[in-house]
Amino acid sequence: MNDRFLRACRREPVDATPVWFMRQAGRYMAEYLEIRAKYSMLEVCRTPELATQVTLQPLRFGVDAAILFADILLPLEPMGAPFDFAKGEGPVVHEPIRTSADIDKLRLIDPEESLGYCLEAIRMLRRELKVPLIGFAGAPFTLASYLIEGGKSAHFTATKRLMYAEPEAWHRLMGKLAEVVRRFLRAQVAAGAQALQVFDSWVGQLGPDDYTRFIAPHMRAILSDVQSTGVPVIHFGTGTSTLLELMAQAGGTVIGVDWRDRLGEAWGRVGYDKAVQGNLDPTVLFAPRSVIQEQARAVLLQAATRPGHIFNLGHGILPGTPVEEVEALVDFVHTETSGPHSRVGSSPRGSSGPKD
Amino acid sequence: MNDRFLRACRREPVDATPVWFMRQAGRYMAEYLEIRAKYSMLEVCRTPELATQVTLQPLRFGVDAAILFADILLPLEPMGAPFDFAKGEGPVVHEPIRTSADIDKLRLIDPEESLGYCLEAIRMLRRELKVPLIGFAGAPFTLASYLIEGGKSAHFTATKRLMYAEPEAWHRLMGKLAEVVRRFLRAQVAAGAQALQVFDSWVGQLGPDDYTRFIAPHMRAILSDVQSTGVPVIHFGTGTSTLLELMAQAGGTVIGVDWRDRLGEAWGRVGYDKAVQGNLDPTVLFAPRSVIQEQARAVLLQAATRPGHIFNLGHGILPGTPVEEVEALVDFVHTETSGPHSRVGSSPRGSSGPKD
Repeated sequence: MNDRFLRACRREPVDATPVWFMRQAGRYMAEYLEIRAKYSMLEVCRTPELATQVTLQPLRFGVDAAILFADILLPLEPMGAPFDFAKGEGPVVHEPIRTSADIDKLRLIDPEESLGYCLEAIRMLRRELKVPLIGFAGAPFTLASYLIEGGKSAHFTATKRLMYAEPEAWHRLMGKLAEVVRRFLRAQVAAGAQALQVFDSWVGQLGPDDYTRFIAPHMRAILSDVQSTGVPVIHFGTGTSTLLELMAQAGGTVIGVDWRDRLGEAWGRVGYDKAVQGNLDPTVLFAPRSVIQEQARAVLLQAATRPGHIFNLGHGILPGTPVEEVEALVDFVHTETSGPHSRVGSSPRGSSGPKD
Repeated sequence: MNDRFLRACRREPVDATPVWFMRQAGRYMAEYLEIRAKYSMLEVCRTPELATQVTLQPLRFGVDAAILFADILLPLEPMGAPFDFAKGEGPVVHEPIRTSADIDKLRLIDPEESLGYCLEAIRMLRRELKVPLIGFAGAPFTLASYLIEGGKSAHFTATKRLMYAEPEAWHRLMGKLAEVVRRFLRAQVAAGAQALQVFDSWVGQLGPDDYTRFIAPHMRAILSDVQSTGVPVIHFGTGTSTLLELMAQAGGTVIGVDWRDRLGEAWGRVGYDKAVQGNLDPTVLFAPRSVIQEQARAVLLQAATRPGHIFNLGHGILPGTPVEEVEALVDFVHTETSGPHSRVGSSPRGSSGPKD
């Protein structure tokens, strides 16, 4: 079993920097598109055999972790807010949540009953995998934004209107979402997930004072509970430059850093008692290999020799990303950080000297 | 003449904090929508009488500056890249720039010849106005993103691909855009603009190292030249938390700060030799008045008593914003920062003590 990823989450020395990619299974891979020609996104998610097959596809690149193929919105349907993926438009929630009564109607689900297909996929995957399996869920703010806006949003106006204008209703909604997320993450651990990632993808739309007041208590409730299971938890968002300290305080074993922060500076603000994950700009994978390697090296240099860095992009792999560059990048990160001449790797924590 | 705005740009004491809003003329105002029922966006921009009329509309709220009604994309058409505004979809550039040959074909325009209608509107406005008039232009990165993507973009993949993969072509494109922007801003000053704002609205998509390499030299070329005319220049972007120091180094009399940074901390990073503009979240205007005032007060407290703060939103006013809240906010900022009990206003620079 390749445990580099789990060791890095725990800030233990590793033989090479672990690497995986958000959305490493998906639209840029021919194998995935072949399956999607026959089944919808939701059909793949809801069929454990298909979810398992898709989850395994990117392992041939040599990544150090697998992440369950699923979608952060899956809990919304059993909660009472069905949605679909409109062609080329992203998710559409059929009846957006707009009133206090809408919030009251949302159900607290039992994940074994409502999301058993994800848990079954986790069990199947654990029988196959030789790398750790990451389970995941969306964070309450990001889920709330889809529930309220009905889909992707440019300005999050309706979401923030509820937050500012009806704080009591807001906290009720966030409390329900946090409880569902907590239950779902716990169930994923019980099914065999060896690490978790919480995607607060859009929380970077908020300033620090709003984060403290409207988001942090709910993240703390989730993270303190699921971290007590002992599995590492990656706390991720984008555009979170002004929130990193607050996110770290809210919880997580590993803090995700997007490409707009220098990883080294971000780590200093997060605190060295946490690991960090990131942070190559996903668009760099469209550049020539020499540029990809130059920028990946810059990320590795930012992480320096401190154990606790998981190499990843700053956000998910983009559609159209050249598959061969993804594979070459995995090799590059491993080669660059292993062996006698590597700058990182199994050097003692905090040491900046060469490996012996 | 109300010169609070210009005094604040120069970090001189003021009798009350000046306030204006990005997109203060526009879609949230009934008077504007009446005009737009008869004329397209581009017709309004290209007819000095209409542009003047629309520019003047929000002055009844008591704002301390007017900003020319125009669009950052206007220079693109005479450069050889015509565009239009698709209903509800934002701008569409008919033939996006994708190759080195496309870049070569872009023309360096003479603003008097190609954008004379804007300059004529500035001359007309100066005859009417009792507050300073702000001229503006888009910054090269933001213009390049529209040119290359053909419209708004989620990930700026094509833009960054050119930047990473063909740096020579990138710098040629940015150099041409910078020269056009420089000429256009100079022409606006010659026509009577008393301040300028450069909108690098999407530059926050880049990390600091890319900003330094691919953006900063072009911003410096523009800003050092137009600042030498003596008019204050506001250098604005969104999502720029990790770029603020670099943007300040690239130039500008005033640095725009979006709502994701605490204004006080941002000012410290920008440096107190610059003024700052911002930074209420535009969605706050959808909240009850008490919440708007609480959040506006928090912004004013961040600016404290240091001269050189221009109150604004962190980005443009959103469609649907309640007009009465915009008017009430202008009053609130003025009242809160003037008179014997104000915390801000005409106190000496840098003092944190009470006014006498």
